Amino acid sequence: MAERAALEELVKLQGERVRGLKQQKASAELIEEEVAKLLKLKAQLGPDESKQKFVLKTPKGTRDYSPRQMAVREKVFDVIIHCFKRHGAEVIDTPVFELKETLTGKYGEDSKLIYDLKDQGGELLSLRYDLTVPFARYLAMNKLTNIKRYHIAKDFDIAGNFDPMIPDAECLKIMCEILSSLQIGDFLVKVSWEEVKNEMVGEKGLAPEVADRIGDYVQQHGGVSLVEQLLQDPKLSQNKQALEGLGDLKLLFEYLTLFGIDDKISFDLSLARGLDYYTGVIYEAVLLQTPAQAGEEPLGVGSVAAGGRYDGLVGMFDPKGRKVPCVGLSIGVERIFSIVEQRLEALEEKVRTTETQVLVASAQKKLLEERLKLVSELWDAGIKAELLYKKNPKLLNQLQYCEEAGIPLVAIIGEQELKDGVIKLRSVTSREEVDVRREDLVEEIKRRTGQPLCIC
Amino acid sequence: MAERAALEELVKLQGERVRGLKQQKASAELIEEEVAKLLKLKAQLGPDESKQKFVLKTPKGTRDYSPRQMAVREKVFDVIIHCFKRHGAEVIDTPVFELKETLTGKYGEDSKLIYDLKDQGGELLSLRYDLTVPFARYLAMNKLTNIKRYHIAKDFDIAGNFDPMIPDAECLKIMCEILSSLQIGDFLVKVSWEEVKNEMVGEKGLAPEVADRIGDYVQQHGGVSLVEQLLQDPKLSQNKQALEGLGDLKLLFEYLTLFGIDDKISFDLSLARGLDYYTGVIYEAVLLQTPAQAGEEPLGVGSVAAGGRYDGLVGMFDPKGRKVPCVGLSIGVERIFSIVEQRLEALEEKVRTTETQVLVASAQKKLLEERLKLVSELWDAGIKAELLYKKNPKLLNQLQYCEEAGIPLVAIIGEQELKDGVIKLRSVTSREEVDVRREDLVEEIKRRTGQPLCIC
Repeated sequence: MAERAALEELVKLQGERVRGLKQQKASAELIEEEVAKLLKLKAQLGPDESKQKFVLKTPKGTRDYSPRQMAVREKVFDVIIHCFKRHGAEVIDTPVFELKETLTGKYGEDSKLIYDLKDQGGELLSLRYDLTVPFARYLAMNKLTNIKRYHIAKDFDIAGNFDPMIPDAECLKIMCEILSSLQIGDFLVKVSWEEVKNEMVGEKGLAPEVADRIGDYVQQHGGVSLVEQLLQDPKLSQNKQALEGLGDLKLLFEYLTLFGIDDKISFDLSLARGLDYYTGVIYEAVLLQTPAQAGEEPLGVGSVAAGGRYDGLVGMFDPKGRKVPCVGLSIGVERIFSIVEQRLEALEEKVRTTETQVLVASAQKKLLEERLKLVSELWDAGIKAELLYKKNPKLLNQLQYCEEAGIPLVAIIGEQELKDGVIKLRSVTSREEVDVRREDLVEEIKRRTGQPLCIC
Repeated sequence: MAERAALEELVKLQGERVRGLKQQKASAELIEEEVAKLLKLKAQLGPDESKQKFVLKTPKGTRDYSPRQMAVREKVFDVIIHCFKRHGAEVIDTPVFELKETLTGKYGEDSKLIYDLKDQGGELLSLRYDLTVPFARYLAMNKLTNIKRYHIAKDFDIAGNFDPMIPDAECLKIMCEILSSLQIGDFLVKVSWEEVKNEMVGEKGLAPEVADRIGDYVQQHGGVSLVEQLLQDPKLSQNKQALEGLGDLKLLFEYLTLFGIDDKISFDLSLARGLDYYTGVIYEAVLLQTPAQAGEEPLGVGSVAAGGRYDGLVGMFDPKGRKVPCVGLSIGVERIFSIVEQRLEALEEKVRTTETQVLVASAQKKLLEERLKLVSELWDAGIKAELLYKKNPKLLNQLQYCEEAGIPLVAIIGEQELKDGVIKLRSVTSREEVDVRREDLVEEIKRRTGQPLCIC
């Protein structure tokens, strides 16, 4: 290693000498001589293998998305964003990093969740690890008391002082709509209540004999019925805070029934969320089925969406401590991508990674210019079109490209067609070919690929 | 300050004492006493004002996007992505951070462009600062020799060994299509050539008398004509590399003419790109107009899109140095957002930040449950709908909300309507109201808001 370091130093010095000579406009002969020395030293040094091996990976815990994976991701995001918009949400965005204090203010310096940026003499910065804290910082900074928004296609929140449980019920409705639309299997949303739970199982809560009975309740996962039972419990109903929480829970289940999703929700006191900013109802959606094949990791475990009420977080950022009640949800998109990906792989389903409608091809040589002119016409008319980047591609290669990429149509230019003012339009699956007048080509492609004829 | 630090230490110690007592299940009396001491100390300390002021900002050089700004951003991204898809591009994504070596391999340790993450005992990581280097790493890592892709809605590249200048011409076509579609004013794409430039103005290039003449050429911004002139220059045409480059440039301008964009392109040897990975044609789009109003910063300066050929970058990441020629472009989305935003502000144009089609409202009190039922029916039928989160909102407030949010329709529930099995559908702008049978409501809303009746 010491030898390598010495060689590296020599290469560096020789490099400097060569650059110096060039600057001084030394004779070509002299420069050549010194360059030769430099190359010899570099050859002795050889490639830095450890470095090259090290570089070819993504950071631990991160991944690339291939076009196939992105096609899946886009479909999942489409479902989620469409749902958020259906519920009237605006969209905001915040930077990928925040002042370190913005993030540590809530979690304490030693939080394992936080990636710090290196101190470069300016502000101390950290990467955001969720979207709730940046959202709370955004509300406090802009003095907003009222907003319904989503954030990079996975976080939805309702902030504001509203009548009890209406926004909470909508969040649960949204969660159910998204999980149903994604068709990733049966799911159940477990619901609990931070304050009720604290009252019941916390230190300063109920007498031990009541706390002992909690276990029984917890076993009886269920919706309204469990809430009713708890409300009738004489010991519980003497506790004001627990009683209020249970009253709100009952209201919540009434609204969930009106939304037609009460069968998807289960009140479950065993539920606990990792983050400590929750103050009211908390929830987590789990898949019930394990669509795992032999040898595969089971997929039914773990949550695919979660959220809850956090009424105190915005106040922590406000200089005067003004509170903005919030309730929200977050979709576990990474987990859902994997599930959809595995399912598509199991079905051996082909996923198109482009939307190209037509390939502009030629039957003879020397037609590159004609192909460029036609493809440009199609682009200008809003058609998704490609051509092979070769001067004289073989027709067979052009047809094969369509098969592989799933392109449905080929517009073939030939010498005869040029004379006749037509283009041969070929369907890739049926192999049928028909001559289309050049001025009708755009309309014919739109008709065949189901694209609206007007631009709305 | 020293006093404050001492107080902070005392608060910390007292906090630890309280927690310890609680853990040891000490008497309530004792705990209360110690908590009182803690609160007294905290009161003495007062709020940490410097910290609270400090927290309420985004990191230097970053910004939040409000719903209005996001609406603009989405429109810009729609235009860009639609264009990339029209040209048959796939999409990939890579992590926001990379191994430090991946980024420094190209630029040297001291690059100002790189934000390092703090060393947390694992890998040394840095934030990506462009998408070209991660793309090159992705190609080398996956041994890809051939791809046309875009990357988070602003970077487009074509990688692969193709016949000369066809992909380069398509990149310029894409740039022109996007800038035309965005309607941000007249633009010009300046084109230069790294190798030609090096040959002509570099150290080991032409004789001084020819280099002197370069100035004249540079003055004559222009397309084909300047290339022709350079080709006819006897001194230049004796230089093999310069001649090859000029030949390719001539070919490029022929293709640009076929694409109908030659009038947008200007060959301009004064162009220089900041990054050193470019190896062939380089280009940069600038706005020609300065739509600045009195007192505003002029907008016409600076580039709104740029790119070029970089044939060496992928090879740097490949252990065997295998080269993958690449050409690409990057859209200056941040700059374009500001231009569109300023324009909309100048026009005082209202930007809708939601897509809500209808507000579910009530004319009387005690109709919350009916509202919840109806809005749920509409959501389930794919209608974008909202309701106010109040038990008994006033009709006037509900109508005002629609005015402010630009919601075009209101579905009003009243006791009479419930008896008659109808809903009153009101147009917010015309104030016309009509009774619609409940079973026809979804179809009527879709008809009025131009949503297709079928889900295609």
